[in-house]
Parts: sequence; structure tokens; C-alpha cells
Amino acid sequence: MSSERLIYLPLGGAGEIGMNCYVYGYGAPDKERLIVVDLGVTFPNMDTTPGVDLIFPDISWLEARKDRIEAIFITHAHEDHVGAVGLCWERLQAPVYARAFTANIARRKMEERGAPENDVRVAEAWPEVVTAGPFKVGLAPISHSIPESSGLVIDSPAGRVVHTGDFKIDETPVLGEPFDREMWRKIAKDGVKALVCDSTNVFSKAAGRSEIIVGPEVEKLIAAQEGMVVATTFASNVARLKTLAEAGVAAGRSVCLLGRAMRRMVEAAVAEGILTDFPSVVSPEEAKDIPRSNLMLLVTGSQGERRAASAQLSNGKYLGLEVKEGDLFLFSSKTIPGNERGVIAIMNAFSEKGVDIVDDNDGLYHVSGHANRPDLEEMHDIIKPQILIPMHGEHRHLREHVKIADSKGIAGVVAVNGMMIELSGNRPEVVEYIESGRTYLDGSVQIGALDGIVRDRIRMALNGHVTVTLVIDEEGDLLGEPWCELKGMSETGRSNAPLVDVLEEDLSQAVGRADRSVIEDDDKLEELLRRVIRQSSSNEIGRKPEVTAVISRLS
Amino acid sequence: MSSERLIYLPLGGAGEIGMNCYVYGYGAPDKERLIVVDLGVTFPNMDTTPGVDLIFPDISWLEARKDRIEAIFITHAHEDHVGAVGLCWERLQAPVYARAFTANIARRKMEERGAPENDVRVAEAWPEVVTAGPFKVGLAPISHSIPESSGLVIDSPAGRVVHTGDFKIDETPVLGEPFDREMWRKIAKDGVKALVCDSTNVFSKAAGRSEIIVGPEVEKLIAAQEGMVVATTFASNVARLKTLAEAGVAAGRSVCLLGRAMRRMVEAAVAEGILTDFPSVVSPEEAKDIPRSNLMLLVTGSQGERRAASAQLSNGKYLGLEVKEGDLFLFSSKTIPGNERGVIAIMNAFSEKGVDIVDDNDGLYHVSGHANRPDLEEMHDIIKPQILIPMHGEHRHLREHVKIADSKGIAGVVAVNGMMIELSGNRPEVVEYIESGRTYLDGSVQIGALDGIVRDRIRMALNGHVTVTLVIDEEGDLLGEPWCELKGMSETGRSNAPLVDVLEEDLSQAVGRADRSVIEDDDKLEELLRRVIRQSSSNEIGRKPEVTAVISRLS
Repeated sequence: MSSERLIYLPLGGAGEIGMNCYVYGYGAPDKERLIVVDLGVTFPNMDTTPGVDLIFPDISWLEARKDRIEAIFITHAHEDHVGAVGLCWERLQAPVYARAFTANIARRKMEERGAPENDVRVAEAWPEVVTAGPFKVGLAPISHSIPESSGLVIDSPAGRVVHTGDFKIDETPVLGEPFDREMWRKIAKDGVKALVCDSTNVFSKAAGRSEIIVGPEVEKLIAAQEGMVVATTFASNVARLKTLAEAGVAAGRSVCLLGRAMRRMVEAAVAEGILTDFPSVVSPEEAKDIPRSNLMLLVTGSQGERRAASAQLSNGKYLGLEVKEGDLFLFSSKTIPGNERGVIAIMNAFSEKGVDIVDDNDGLYHVSGHANRPDLEEMHDIIKPQILIPMHGEHRHLREHVKIADSKGIAGVVAVNGMMIELSGNRPEVVEYIESGRTYLDGSVQIGALDGIVRDRIRMALNGHVTVTLVIDEEGDLLGEPWCELKGMSETGRSNAPLVDVLEEDLSQAVGRADRSVIEDDDKLEELLRRVIRQSSSNEIGRKPEVTAVISRLS
Repeated sequence: MSSERLIYLPLGGAGEIGMNCYVYGYGAPDKERLIVVDLGVTFPNMDTTPGVDLIFPDISWLEARKDRIEAIFITHAHEDHVGAVGLCWERLQAPVYARAFTANIARRKMEERGAPENDVRVAEAWPEVVTAGPFKVGLAPISHSIPESSGLVIDSPAGRVVHTGDFKIDETPVLGEPFDREMWRKIAKDGVKALVCDSTNVFSKAAGRSEIIVGPEVEKLIAAQEGMVVATTFASNVARLKTLAEAGVAAGRSVCLLGRAMRRMVEAAVAEGILTDFPSVVSPEEAKDIPRSNLMLLVTGSQGERRAASAQLSNGKYLGLEVKEGDLFLFSSKTIPGNERGVIAIMNAFSEKGVDIVDDNDGLYHVSGHANRPDLEEMHDIIKPQILIPMHGEHRHLREHVKIADSKGIAGVVAVNGMMIELSGNRPEVVEYIESGRTYLDGSVQIGALDGIVRDRIRMALNGHVTVTLVIDEEGDLLGEPWCELKGMSETGRSNAPLVDVLEEDLSQAVGRADRSVIEDDDKLEELLRRVIRQSSSNEIGRKPEVTAVISRLS
């Protein structure tokens, strides 16, 4: 048995859907040469991450070993796979490989964060390979909901790993490469050590549906409309954009793209030669002069994002365009769990304007980009791996996926972020637990999820905030009275007097009664002030606020 | 034409799902005698109402006319219909009428808030009626997902209104009264002026399903389990609790109820003689000694509520009970839109413990309590109203429901909270817009949604908070330097120096350069401090915090 080993280590995306980042290594323990697969983001929410702009994996482990990183591979251009490449590059400084369209988007991500665009290199599709230390990595075309998605064929001295990336089995994907069973069979024919496999739709029991079924339904829908038609989908689903735009044109409508992300994606797809026959579009300026019955808008914001075009339109005019009674708004998309509130708010805002809303409830106007359970099973059967490691799923998805492996006699393991798995043996083996976690882009700064900064913000949101000020003179005597300023708290409470007066009075008494030893000690005095405010607020308004105590000692 | 009129005014529940409160009035304009139907709550969320405990309708309009209120009627004991009766009673001081089970729950709500329980009066079911000024109101049994739900038959000199309350058409509801077509036909036979109708499931196209279908499926599921079975549903769905408990007993299991809300509901249903044959239950203490394969827990928390039994169990031991690998957790419930994050978090926590989760994805283990579209249409056909007013729905639901009315030649109107509708004529007519809104229970205090208190909390959550202190001596000179305390903000930014140092340095310079006229004027000085902090923070960390400026002038 060689002393070298093959390892797999997820740092993001395993135990969650979002911020994908997977590491493979080969070499002597703790000396493995490493490759990174994907550097994605996930999106914040008010519940757990108020004020945060983006969330991405904690890459400290990688950063400490950056001299061992041979390359970064990006499977496809979705935000949860490519979104953090610009944010992380400075700390990793390894070349980034992707196919042309993905590289185009990756370069924009690098540019945005001041990272060197030239470090993004275009890789040709499998059977071409990129040599990265002990690895040879091929980017094998696989169908998904964005052009040029790749599964990775990762060859190492310990054998071949197939990392599916996000995928579905679609032989008629409208745009880009159909799923190629023959190619995958050939890739698998000499044996595959491990299949690291998308798990998103493991709970969907029906066979997956092809992108091609959407077009005819959308055409029927649009043809029946008399007002303006507005449709939204994921900006990156270029095939869907094409389907929607073509349905619009077929119904005699001019098409206008609204929203930066959507225009960017179409630009990139055109630039890379993927999108050759997209209908010509009109500018918002031109759209204003086109009769509503001849106009179709394709807009960003399928997830209810507050600043996207759909939300803007639901609130009023956007770039001079406006929805009216009798228009139609089509969600050609699925609401990602957790985004319901935003989407519903937009639906109701449109409803108030008399706009009819059609969504994916009937399953006619959207298909998923991920393999459903029968398709996952087909992939297992094609690849016939020795080991199955589910990824791209919450814990419940990974666990369910391992159950499938078990039922087929494939050695499976639930490997969540931070679990280093050795793949060299016949069965996967957990060899180490790495500290993994989340990093927040907060304004222009990167902060750790456990720094307590966001926790303090959540506490202020839940409890309100009191600033208490005390001035103490040169002799150590109180100068004037303690003084409170409240934020986010009721102005009056139980006693009907202004809360600020009650607090100041209680503080005054407490400080008056306090020992000299407390007054002279900043920590003790602060503790006293905090305790009095929390107790007194609790009596008055049933709430214990966050407290900032400012003690000014004149000297 | 009489100078008296019949009016309808929703103050909650029309344009939203939650906090139901509807007003009917009859009399000369602005002298109408009033009845109130339902006083419900809605639940807060971090996005819009962080820290808030409960949300209920702004009843200022009613309070200002409390001498004109004849009675309050509660249709059924769901929180969104009865939850605010204790919170509002003091301001309205009118007798509360409900059927026995609902009254039992309403009394608990009164007691909780120190309102007089005796003002809740038990009304007998239709054809009995309560006389309330010009109105005669009958509480007519109607099937829903809680016992003793009532539709109201409201007779006034201007005609009969049928207010459905929440309902479904269920002839086999397991517990309580089946939907009685014959009774409703009789109620309608002399003509109904207006049908004010539940709209929750107007987008569900299939016919509704009866509660009775759930039992056999649950029995099959439980019979196949070897570990402990834990099931959750809405605590108030007493029929479902019975179904679940009976399925457990049929599979040879002892049943244990966990969670206060669930025990309360069962208690109330037993006390009112509704629940006569609930299987005997064991206490958590006793449950500990029962083998897992013979035990079933019925727990609260189907919506992922953080403090409910399901969340507690997903985190570890609860009252000495613990889930283990091989146990089953059944969601016999639907996730209400907006609650997905909490529910998913619990599912994954159970998954980590090796617990299998079954939810309503396949439609086997839950049926809705609201009428689907075909059932709504049947209700229209039974009642044959002159006017249809949809309620209990977001704007999109109300609008869709009016479209149905239009298609049938019934005069419909989208009436949202605050729209006063006159029903005396042949068509509904909007006669006034009332200021309606939301009141928050915040700790122990009631605050207005527009008071700015919660807005300040949201701002602190998004932007962080800086306290800046300045001491100015008797001569108007700065004593020492400006001093900052940060909360919820990154400690360092662009310049790599501590952010607090950068802010204090910038403040020092700005104050040093400021005119005497600024230093001497609290408002101007505060404005300067705020501006410098926001600008300087924005440069350093890309974020403009909330600022509390404390200026201490020694005198």
C-alpha cells in the first residue's frame, strides 16, 4: 500500500445548498497537492445574517496551504459555484480553469474584486485535460440550467473520481450540449473510484423533464395575451431566456431585457458563441413606444429580490416602463425555499395593479436543472462507482442519497463541510475534521461568521439599544445625572411615564447608592448601569435591551 | 330608500392571510350600530418585524366608536381569529360571543391579558341567534380544521349576509359537524344579500379532500415503523390529533402529547364534550420507560417554531425524551409560506440524528382546512348571493375570487383592509377609506407599526450602530477627544487600522475644524458627528451605520 493518499474535503455545499467549494488532494498525508472545485456564494437573509452582502466558505484551511494548491476549477457559472472566485482569489493565488462561457463570467467576478482576470484560463472540454500536479482534470459537458456546465473527470494515481457538478439528464436542452450517455459510459468503463454527485432533487421521485417541453406551453400562454407580457426566470438560464424570447417573437412581440444580470448573461453567451440566434431585442427606450400588445419584457428578479427589475416594476415605473391592468406576469421559475416572502410580496403588488400572475404551480412553465431521483439512479448505473459521495444538498438530501447507494451496494458516506474523506481504500474513510465555516462580505469587508458582529446586530434588532452616558469629574464624583438615549424601543411602558425618564431616574438612584469602589471601577460601573437598564426596561416594557455604556472621566 | 345603510369594513384579513377582523354596521351613516367578527393575530418575522411578539389589527377606528359596538363574534379558535381578543378587549369593552369550544379558548386569551373572562358568552349554534342591536347573528356550524367552526348568518333590516369564516366542504370531518348542504340551502332560500367568503385556496383547482382520508395512510405508515414515531400537526387540529393518536394506538403504541398548545387544545375539547374518545395518553415521565417501538409522540411545532417541542427534540433531549437513529418524524401538516427556513432547519437537525422524515410532499398525510376553488364555487351556488366579497386572502386571492364572481354574474368587489363597503344597494359600493393598519405587541407594550421603533431596529440590524460621545466644558471647549463605541460593525476596514481609531481621528479633525457656531449648537454638532461617522465608515467598511451622538455640556 502506498503511503500516498487521495482525499476529498468539502468546505461548502455539503450539508447546505449554496456556496459550493470542494477540495481534492493527492500525496503523502499533510503534503497532498490540492485542487479546488468551485468557489461559490450563498445569499444572506434577515433571520440569520442581517446586513450581510454575500456569504462564502471559510477558506482559512486552504489559505494556510496555498503553496499546495495546483489549480481551481469552476464547473459552471452559477453564483453558488463561481460567485466567490474574485473574493477568494487573493488569498489562494492559484490559476482558475473553466470552459469559455464560465471563464467569461469568472473573469467578471475577478475584475469586480480587483483580482487578475488573466488568471482565469479557458479549458477545452473533455477529452482534453488540464494537468494539475498529480491530477489530470477533464471538464466533461453535462446538461444543467446554464450553458457549458461541466462534470469533472479527475484522474489521480489512486484512480478516477467523477465530480458531477450540478446536472440533470436532458437530451434536448434547447441550448448547449445534450446529456451524452455514451461519453459518460466511456469515462466509466475502466472503473471509477468515486462518484461525487449532485443531490438537490433526491426527494423528487418523478423522472426529470427536459427544457424543451417549456417552449410550446409558453407560446400558447403568450399567444393568448392582449396586454403586455412580462416574464422572469433565473438570469443565467440562457436556454430559458431563448425559449421565452422566441415565444414572444412568435406571438408578434418585441422583446426587451430588463436587469443587469440578464443582459450580462446574454452578452457573455453571445460573446462566447453559445447563443447565436437570440431574437433581436429592443432597448427600454424603444420599448416605450411599442404598443403593449406587441411587447414582452424579460426581467430579473424571479426570487423576489428587492432591487431586481421585477420588484421595481411591481412598485411603479422602471426605466420608463410600467405594468397596467390586463398585463401578464409569468414566473418561469421555481421559488427557492426561503424566498417565498419576497416572491409573494411581488405577486400581490402586481395583483394590486390588475396584473394577472402565472407561476409554476401547474408545472407547465418551468423545469428543474437538477437530476431527480430516477436520473440520479441512472447516473449511478452509468458510472458504477466504488464509492458514492453525495454533495450539493442539505443534510437530509445527502442522507437520502446515501440510502440509495446503500440499497445498491455502493459504499456511500454522508460527508458534510469539514469532513476530510480518504478515498484511497475500498471504502470511504473519515480521516480528519477540518474547521470549516462561513465568511461574510459585509459592506466592503470580509468578516467571520463567528466574530459576533452579526450576532450583535441581531440582538439590537430583537431587543433595541440604549446608550447610557455618565460624566465623572476629577474627584471621582458624578457630574450631573446619568443620561439615556433609546433606539428601537417603545417610548412609554407600564408606568405611562416616558421610558427614558424612568430609566434615568432608576440609574440615578442606583448610582447614588453605589459604593465608591464601583464608581471608581469602569467595569463594575458599566456592569451596574447595564443591569439597572435591563431590569428597569424589563419592568416597564417587557424587554431587555442591548446597552452601550459611555463613562467619561474628566482628568 | 331608507337613510339607513348596511356596511362592511375589514380591518384585518383582507389583503393578507392572518389577523382577521371584520366589522358590520347598520344604521344612519356614521351612526351605524356595529358588530365585530373575529379579533386575530398574525406572527412576526425577522424581515419586517424583528423583536415583535405578536401583530394584530389597528383598532383605533373601532375604539373611537366603542359606544356603537354591540358585540364581538368569534367564528373559531384559530389564532388568526381569536388570538387578539384579550389584547383588544380593554379598548372595545363589548361582549364576546362564540360557541362553547371557541369560547373556552377565548376565555384563556382574555385571562392571559387580564381581561374579564365573563364577558365571553357561549352562543348556541344556528338556528339560535344572538340579538346585537339591529342585527340577529346566528353561528352556523361549518367544517374546517378545528372543532365548532362557524359561519355567521347576519340578519339586518337591509337583508341577510353570510360570513363563511374559514371553511371547507367536508362531509366526513372525523370530529365535529359535517358540512350540511341542506342547512345552508335553507339559510339561503329567501335570498342572501352578500356572501363574505374565505379565499385562502382559490388557486387550488382540485376538489378539496376530506379529513377522513388521512387516517388509513397514517396507520399504514406507523404500522411499518420499528423506532419511535414522532408526529406534528397544528395543535388546534383536534380531528387530526385524534387520527394520529388512534393510528398510534392501532399500531400498539402509547401516545404522549408534548407541547403546551397541544395539551391545551385537547383539554378544551375534552372539557367542552367535543372530544369524547381520545385515546388515553401517557406523561413524558411515563413515556421514558416505554420501549421506542411502542411509543408515539404528538408534538407542537409543525411550522418550525423555535421554542416548540419539535425544535427542542431536534436539538437534543426534551423533558427527558430524545430521538434516535431509526426513529420517524412525520409532518402531518403543510408549511405555511414564509415558514420554510425554520421547518427545513428542523428537518436537517433530525436528519443529522439519523431520523427519517416524512412530510406532506406526496399529499398523503395532510389535507387543507380551506375550500378549494371547486368547493368555493359550490358554496356560491348554494348561497346564490347578490354580492360576493372575498376575504381571508392576500390581494391576489381576493382578486382571483372576484374574477370567479364576475364569471357567474355575481357582483364582486376586492375589498381590502380599510375599505368601507355599503351593501344596501344592488351592487357593493366603496363609501369610505378608513385608516387601518397593524399594532405590535412588543414585549409587554402595544406599539403602532408606523411608530418607527421597529424601523430603527431594522436599520441597526442592517447597518450596525455607533455611539459617539463628546464632552464640552463650561467655556464651550472640547474636553478630551470624541469617543466612539461600535456595535455590530467590523473591527477593521480598508486602512487596516482599528475602525474605532479611524473614526475617532476623523471626528477629532472635523470637530477641530468646526466653527464655534457649530460647537455651540447641539443639533448642528450632532449632524456634523453623524455625517463624519457615516462618511468615514463608508470609506473604511462600505457601510453607513446608525449613530447615537451624546454631547455632554458641563455647566
